[in-house]
Amino acid sequence: MSELRKDPIVERWVIIAAERGRRPSDFKPEPPPPTGGGCPFDGGMEAKTPPEVFAIRPGGGPPNSPGWEVRVVPNKFPALSTEGDVTHHGIGLLDWMTGVGAHEVVIESPSHDFNFALAPPEHMVLIFNAFIQRVQDLRGDVRFRHVIVFRNHGATAGASLSHPHSQLIALSITPEAVRQKLSASREYFMRKERCIFCDLIEQEMALPDRLIYANEHFVALSPFAARFPFEVHIFPRRHAHDFTVMDGDQKLALADCLQFVLRRYNEELSDPPYNLMLQTSPNLVPRPGRPDYWGTIQCDYHWHIEILPRLTKQAGFEWGTGFFINPVSPEAAAGFLRGDAPAAESETH
Amino acid sequence: MSELRKDPIVERWVIIAAERGRRPSDFKPEPPPPTGGGCPFDGGMEAKTPPEVFAIRPGGGPPNSPGWEVRVVPNKFPALSTEGDVTHHGIGLLDWMTGVGAHEVVIESPSHDFNFALAPPEHMVLIFNAFIQRVQDLRGDVRFRHVIVFRNHGATAGASLSHPHSQLIALSITPEAVRQKLSASREYFMRKERCIFCDLIEQEMALPDRLIYANEHFVALSPFAARFPFEVHIFPRRHAHDFTVMDGDQKLALADCLQFVLRRYNEELSDPPYNLMLQTSPNLVPRPGRPDYWGTIQCDYHWHIEILPRLTKQAGFEWGTGFFINPVSPEAAAGFLRGDAPAAESETH
Repeated sequence: MSELRKDPIVERWVIIAAERGRRPSDFKPEPPPPTGGGCPFDGGMEAKTPPEVFAIRPGGGPPNSPGWEVRVVPNKFPALSTEGDVTHHGIGLLDWMTGVGAHEVVIESPSHDFNFALAPPEHMVLIFNAFIQRVQDLRGDVRFRHVIVFRNHGATAGASLSHPHSQLIALSITPEAVRQKLSASREYFMRKERCIFCDLIEQEMALPDRLIYANEHFVALSPFAARFPFEVHIFPRRHAHDFTVMDGDQKLALADCLQFVLRRYNEELSDPPYNLMLQTSPNLVPRPGRPDYWGTIQCDYHWHIEILPRLTKQAGFEWGTGFFINPVSPEAAAGFLRGDAPAAESETH
Repeated sequence: MSELRKDPIVERWVIIAAERGRRPSDFKPEPPPPTGGGCPFDGGMEAKTPPEVFAIRPGGGPPNSPGWEVRVVPNKFPALSTEGDVTHHGIGLLDWMTGVGAHEVVIESPSHDFNFALAPPEHMVLIFNAFIQRVQDLRGDVRFRHVIVFRNHGATAGASLSHPHSQLIALSITPEAVRQKLSASREYFMRKERCIFCDLIEQEMALPDRLIYANEHFVALSPFAARFPFEVHIFPRRHAHDFTVMDGDQKLALADCLQFVLRRYNEELSDPPYNLMLQTSPNLVPRPGRPDYWGTIQCDYHWHIEILPRLTKQAGFEWGTGFFINPVSPEAAAGFLRGDAPAAESETH
């Protein structure tokens, strides 16, 4: 069974996935991911995956039969186990807990050649609906404090199967990167009675420098302190802490905004590898007698999507400092992604 | 000129190295690094680098002439500029400062085929001496709060030139990853009158599980919450906050311990790519009237080296949560690196 271990010096947890234990000889250069025939995620190959936990099957039909549009299955090589209780342990300076969690794969289409950037908006809504159903279902499990939905596109970005898919992992603790954002949102709200993300969006939309695209409900920005060249963040324009409460119009608007960015990546950057992360409020409704800290649903948070093209490498400087070096200014990146005529880089902030 | 920008939500700074500004078409797959003839770091090619800032030339001779053993030159494509003042700016939620710093390359040998893992210990001492001279010199520049020394080995780990070299970057702020460790050391010392690293080393050396190698002065451990498979941390066994104060015996002992680990990497993992980071106390002696916070030399810190083999990929889950998934338990990694006979993984903590 895997374990969650805390670094004894700093606030950092890792998953030691020992049942994935490999020998040193397993760490050779990886073969390219399989393509074409025999893919376990293709329609008609349902028996090759673990039994589904959810599917959208418009024509009806039993679980694990063909005819689905979007299908969610447990990860065959999960980082965490869904069985057992979360138990906490410690010896001296060392702290750990059992590696309990959920690790699921959202197969975005039965078609191996499905293109997430070019799919019909109505199909994107089905994918969002699958995310929503799974997050809402996992929120009902009191062992879990947070669910992260993410999408790895391209081998460089960590995709090990080429069939288009997203993943989600439910964790028994609120991860540090999320906790920092929750903490900042809470502090700012206590001080100002306003959402820090709402204020940032208002400030950024007043200037064109880092604005990439906006429709009625969503806005795509090149973040001021982007870690990665061509990094993009997408926010709902009206305050919302929870992505699962979108209505139909909002889902279509999200598809429009997200696909605008991904199509511009394809046009400007030749289908780059990227990581996409959906950041929403944690899971738990406060319960009497239970200290939840950062696992509690926080209405002062503002949900968003981060997209990180993986065109640069992280090396000793980045790992040793937590700093990133970004060789493309966010203003230039926004210009490229908006489709501006090439020009000198803006100096405005 | 580049800028240091702070993320408006969380404590994270990035370097926007706009003078490195590249167009989207520059982000194609990279050609392999050059090897063999024409390398600007080879002995005899001194004119191909910027003028040296330091060199160890046992036979004497003028700067930028052949005959050196270790040579330090400014990075030809620096992330930060050594010219100008550190000035701080802000508009609304956005904060930034001028990108002032030093970015130098430590050429570890005039020989292109130099092997850092197999070099004579006496040559390793020369490399350490170059690190020490540069860190001490940059500490004299009141604009800089922290210097990080790092080594990227292999293209996957971000090395863009194959000639063996390390780098150092002096920063005008103490980076977040360092600040977290300094803060933990300070808090623990205030509570216990002891160093948290000393306590951790004592606890780990009492058990053989994660111990890889120890000599009189240094110990190599597989960290309890390792982020990367086969990650190794090396600590001086006696408390020391500053790596620049090592004596000759300690330098030879560090070479012995470090090269033991790197040779075992070569034997078990076929010369894997890795990042090595030297973590030592920040720069400034407290000055009246100057708020230094985490830029002040902190004697409750314990300097160390981190080595991260780059055998796994960081993807959406890691970037979105700050969590890492490590598929090799630190106990198994320590066993492999010690050279134990293959056995079932230990379950002990």
